[in-house]
Amino acid sequence: MPESLDLKFMSECLNLARKAEGKTLPNPMVGSVLVKNNKIISRGYHKKSGSPHAEAEAINNAGRNAKGAILYVNLEPCSSYGKTPPCVDAIIRSGIKKVVVAVKDPNPKHNGRGLKILSRHGIEVKCGVMKEQACELNKVFLKNVTEKMPYVTLKVACSLDGRLADFGGESKWITDHDARMFSHSRIRSNTDAILVGINTVLKDDPLLSVRYGRLKTSNPIKVVLDSSLKVSLNSGILKGPGRTIIVSSEKCSNRAKAKTLANKGVKIIALPSKSGFFNIKDLLKILYSQGIYRLLVEGGGSVISSFIDAKAADYIYIFTANMILGGDYLVYNGRGFRLSKPVKVINREVKIFKNSVLISGDLSYV
Amino acid sequence: MPESLDLKFMSECLNLARKAEGKTLPNPMVGSVLVKNNKIISRGYHKKSGSPHAEAEAINNAGRNAKGAILYVNLEPCSSYGKTPPCVDAIIRSGIKKVVVAVKDPNPKHNGRGLKILSRHGIEVKCGVMKEQACELNKVFLKNVTEKMPYVTLKVACSLDGRLADFGGESKWITDHDARMFSHSRIRSNTDAILVGINTVLKDDPLLSVRYGRLKTSNPIKVVLDSSLKVSLNSGILKGPGRTIIVSSEKCSNRAKAKTLANKGVKIIALPSKSGFFNIKDLLKILYSQGIYRLLVEGGGSVISSFIDAKAADYIYIFTANMILGGDYLVYNGRGFRLSKPVKVINREVKIFKNSVLISGDLSYV
Repeated sequence: MPESLDLKFMSECLNLARKAEGKTLPNPMVGSVLVKNNKIISRGYHKKSGSPHAEAEAINNAGRNAKGAILYVNLEPCSSYGKTPPCVDAIIRSGIKKVVVAVKDPNPKHNGRGLKILSRHGIEVKCGVMKEQACELNKVFLKNVTEKMPYVTLKVACSLDGRLADFGGESKWITDHDARMFSHSRIRSNTDAILVGINTVLKDDPLLSVRYGRLKTSNPIKVVLDSSLKVSLNSGILKGPGRTIIVSSEKCSNRAKAKTLANKGVKIIALPSKSGFFNIKDLLKILYSQGIYRLLVEGGGSVISSFIDAKAADYIYIFTANMILGGDYLVYNGRGFRLSKPVKVINREVKIFKNSVLISGDLSYV
Repeated sequence: MPESLDLKFMSECLNLARKAEGKTLPNPMVGSVLVKNNKIISRGYHKKSGSPHAEAEAINNAGRNAKGAILYVNLEPCSSYGKTPPCVDAIIRSGIKKVVVAVKDPNPKHNGRGLKILSRHGIEVKCGVMKEQACELNKVFLKNVTEKMPYVTLKVACSLDGRLADFGGESKWITDHDARMFSHSRIRSNTDAILVGINTVLKDDPLLSVRYGRLKTSNPIKVVLDSSLKVSLNSGILKGPGRTIIVSSEKCSNRAKAKTLANKGVKIIALPSKSGFFNIKDLLKILYSQGIYRLLVEGGGSVISSFIDAKAADYIYIFTANMILGGDYLVYNGRGFRLSKPVKVINREVKIFKNSVLISGDLSYV
């Protein structure tokens, strides 16, 4: 099979996979095609957790015709029973002669096992076609499985001189309406939870809801870091759609408030803290155990900085508004980095709004 | 004359004027066309100070054919003797029947006078066609004439979090080579002088020369704000092409150093100062009197901030590099602005480099 055809068929798998974007978690997005005589004879993709896997669907769609075909799939076929039977069994049974895969199963328990079983059954195996694009597509799943933590995105709106608010703390609004629309419909609508610090709640009283655009799943969970339970019972985050989680310090003695909040349906998670700060990676593991696969961190500066300093943020969106503000509300006020080892924003994208520029990309730490 | 034709002919004037970009100061860029039967019959533009004015050239090129024509010019014709005789006389003599102008002469002594004289001689006069574009073209000249100060451009390169250097003061290099090429060939090459503070000289030892691209005139003058004459006699700014001006405090007692510097060809300007800071508008008037019509301010943060706080900067270029740095070297550390009254960057332009984004525009103060 010439390389160009491998690319063509794997691209089709990625396109099929992407059809279920935001709907498959905690499962990955997977697409699969069966090829005979250089032509696609059937297609399949994983629609949501519990639905058939992509390969199983493609094989099923081909019926007896699968015999002698080449199967393309962007993730190594599973070799164990989950909610559905193992795909390697279906592949072997179908008489498929070759399997082309983009990336191996990231789960260390399964990594490469499915391919080995196929090989042992005389099926030709090729791995690594469009690996980079396939990793990018499933970056959330890959982080989830390998680190047992949510994929973390930071979102900030600041002035050209890196301020989140003016010297008086006012931040409504640094960016324009178009930028906020984008923020709701493209960023907030693609996360399982939105996290802010208690100072942001006290200062801005945000709703942390998705008010523009269409939600792919339910409204994100609202997570507030509030070590000493300062949150007001009338806060916007306690109203409206979406569950609320408040992370407080183990040392917090305000049991009555914790109880009142719990009665209002708020989940209180008590964690060890140091001068009001939590260990970010421990926090992320707890949030992951709560079914939060994608976490959006919106601020303020101290919270953003603690995620950067912990090297725990994967992606950043910075809306830079056409203004200079000054003052103490810095977008990053952490311990700082040497110019020879900065936190880099790679695979950067730029989007131009009327009154701001959005710079976004993967965060890369040395 | 339909409005669309007025726009067409005035656009041609602006295009002609722009041919001498960077070469006319302290004069404006001016272009002129003569029109008969809706067709351009002659053209002219001002090539440099001392050369004929645009109108004079267009009339001269038309010869006797100027009679009965309409003259378009982007600036009100002069009515007094300068290095060349007044253009209004030439217009009256030529038998031109109508004059269309974009903007009046900004000099309060001449403002509207030329048009009045033409009117008094029975010549039809129209003013204001493409006024905005004509003002933009001659923004340097307009500021020079009305405020007797140079047009001031700020240029900074910073991280996404608004830092000019890392916490250790290292700033080489925040931006990439392409951005620095642009900076030399498009920004430094279009100024009469480059100004920095003494801390930048001591820390970075810059040459402040134009090393990429072609100079339109001579190498810019190097201006250093150095209230107590801390500059080293081996500094890069004392070498290479271009004159050096050092602005020191009147109170500075180091006469010997001042003399040594003067012997090396440095011009020392002594000004009143307050805690090492100068009154920026007084400084600008002095620099203007030295023939500096365009001033580029390159930093560091305190110098940039003092120009912003004095509302004395007209334009800004911010190169925002794809990194987060932290630390104390803020791009703006001045007194700050309310979000309701920020320093706005208007008519913003965005240019995307590999490792940075250049945001530039006019600074607008409330």
